[in-house]
Amino acid sequence: CVVMSVGAAGALNCVFKALLQEGDTVIVPAPFFAEYRHYVHNFGGTLIEVPCTEDFSLDIDAIEKALSPKTAAVLINSPNNPTGRIYTQNEIDRLAQVLDKHAKKCGRKPYLICDEPYRAITYDGASVASAFKAYDSSIVVTSFAKNLSLPGERVGYICVNPACPDKADVVAACIFTTRILGFVNAPALFQKVVAHSWNAKVDYSLYEKRRNMLMQNLDQAGIHYVRPQGAFYLWCKVPDAYKGDDMAFCEHLKKHLILAAPGSGFGGKGYFRLAYCVSEKSIAGSKAAFIAAVKDLH
Amino acid sequence: CVVMSVGAAGALNCVFKALLQEGDTVIVPAPFFAEYRHYVHNFGGTLIEVPCTEDFSLDIDAIEKALSPKTAAVLINSPNNPTGRIYTQNEIDRLAQVLDKHAKKCGRKPYLICDEPYRAITYDGASVASAFKAYDSSIVVTSFAKNLSLPGERVGYICVNPACPDKADVVAACIFTTRILGFVNAPALFQKVVAHSWNAKVDYSLYEKRRNMLMQNLDQAGIHYVRPQGAFYLWCKVPDAYKGDDMAFCEHLKKHLILAAPGSGFGGKGYFRLAYCVSEKSIAGSKAAFIAAVKDLH
Repeated sequence: CVVMSVGAAGALNCVFKALLQEGDTVIVPAPFFAEYRHYVHNFGGTLIEVPCTEDFSLDIDAIEKALSPKTAAVLINSPNNPTGRIYTQNEIDRLAQVLDKHAKKCGRKPYLICDEPYRAITYDGASVASAFKAYDSSIVVTSFAKNLSLPGERVGYICVNPACPDKADVVAACIFTTRILGFVNAPALFQKVVAHSWNAKVDYSLYEKRRNMLMQNLDQAGIHYVRPQGAFYLWCKVPDAYKGDDMAFCEHLKKHLILAAPGSGFGGKGYFRLAYCVSEKSIAGSKAAFIAAVKDLH
Repeated sequence: CVVMSVGAAGALNCVFKALLQEGDTVIVPAPFFAEYRHYVHNFGGTLIEVPCTEDFSLDIDAIEKALSPKTAAVLINSPNNPTGRIYTQNEIDRLAQVLDKHAKKCGRKPYLICDEPYRAITYDGASVASAFKAYDSSIVVTSFAKNLSLPGERVGYICVNPACPDKADVVAACIFTTRILGFVNAPALFQKVVAHSWNAKVDYSLYEKRRNMLMQNLDQAGIHYVRPQGAFYLWCKVPDAYKGDDMAFCEHLKKHLILAAPGSGFGGKGYFRLAYCVSEKSIAGSKAAFIAAVKDLH
């Protein structure tokens, strides 16, 4: 039930081309990876953003309200880019119950698409809950860019739940969309590399160390953030002085040579995203810059 | 004016996503590579097939008649898959004149998209005519799969004519579509490989030898074909006994362990395609099979 793909982004495009009819909707908890919007629009779908709860857990009731007969899929990303949140098994189970209930009522079963490129990069002993056990019509897409530190090699896969009632059709459709969208195949040499390196040990503690350094910097600057459980992003609140204007605050940070992504692009106005997949030297150097940038406000 | 791509198939999808509006048409001389249909349909376009002349040259008058204000592009493939034809500079020049004339009349200038993955593989001293000199709104897409014998590594590029009036917009759009269609980037390691191997000498005479062997086999079996000027396909006429039914004749060939592609898929009913990018041993072994398959008919 596995189709090799040109990275997770290629995988998602193949899956949406396979599943979506013109006018279908895809529900995504916000904030979310900005390019999801395009992946869904590419194939005639509409992305419906459903805000998470205040602590960036899934808001199951809000997702339930957003479901309709047009819902082709719910798309979750755990660990989440940009928040670093990992959804718990309890959240996944409750989401699955809501989807099952909806399917029985409306006769159309939405797929649960789990985008998991950061699955291996978790902190504080956390691990990513499996959707396969909870919900049969589930599809995992991922890439080897992060867990094997192979960015840019464009090799990933689509895995359809073996329990999915129409798994044969979904797999056949994804093989077809992989061809006709021009991906054709996951790059040949790196298919061999990932087969060979399947059990490679990558030292993710480097990321944890950088996360901790950056959190300390932000603590000292007085910037509030969500403590990331995985991936390598920090989701930070725009200081009050900027009244939620994340675009303006990111411009302000630029003056202090800090590159941050405005939250609005991720469906999270009032926040900004920092990435800590950069050198320790850069992170160490950013401490004074963050402190100065916040002092500047007063 | 160059955007690196995930192969020529990825390049074509990015170009069509960049150029097409819902309802636009793309004109293609038939026969043509079967997947073009999908590449155009993926983004709301309609493929208009215009048959070539009897010797598989471009039928410029027929292309002119097919032009309309909805024509976004003309797509040519030289050397052609499946016919092996290389369009002459004269054909390209005449096509360019017709497109320029149409643009002046209707106010919309169609792009000329040249799919050239087999550009380096030519025979009998032939070479591929340049569209860039003839027509400013031209775009070449290609891959390194064939000219560097790197099949499966998914590395190619889109080259927009430096003389194209809106080249900056086309390049920006292709960079954007490369991202949002999930290609993201041409595989990183093989970008370095092709930079390093740019002037590598590949011995294409192997293909020429195989072409000549296969042509001899077909001559002896009494099967008519187009003499290929490039690429590695032979475009053959279905024997009269099958009355143009290429599907049935390919089924018949299978019984003799010959795998051929029915012409109908390429917009060329009554023909079938053979590929000679196979071992010399296979080609040598096919001689008796072709003779037996044709004898079987009588």
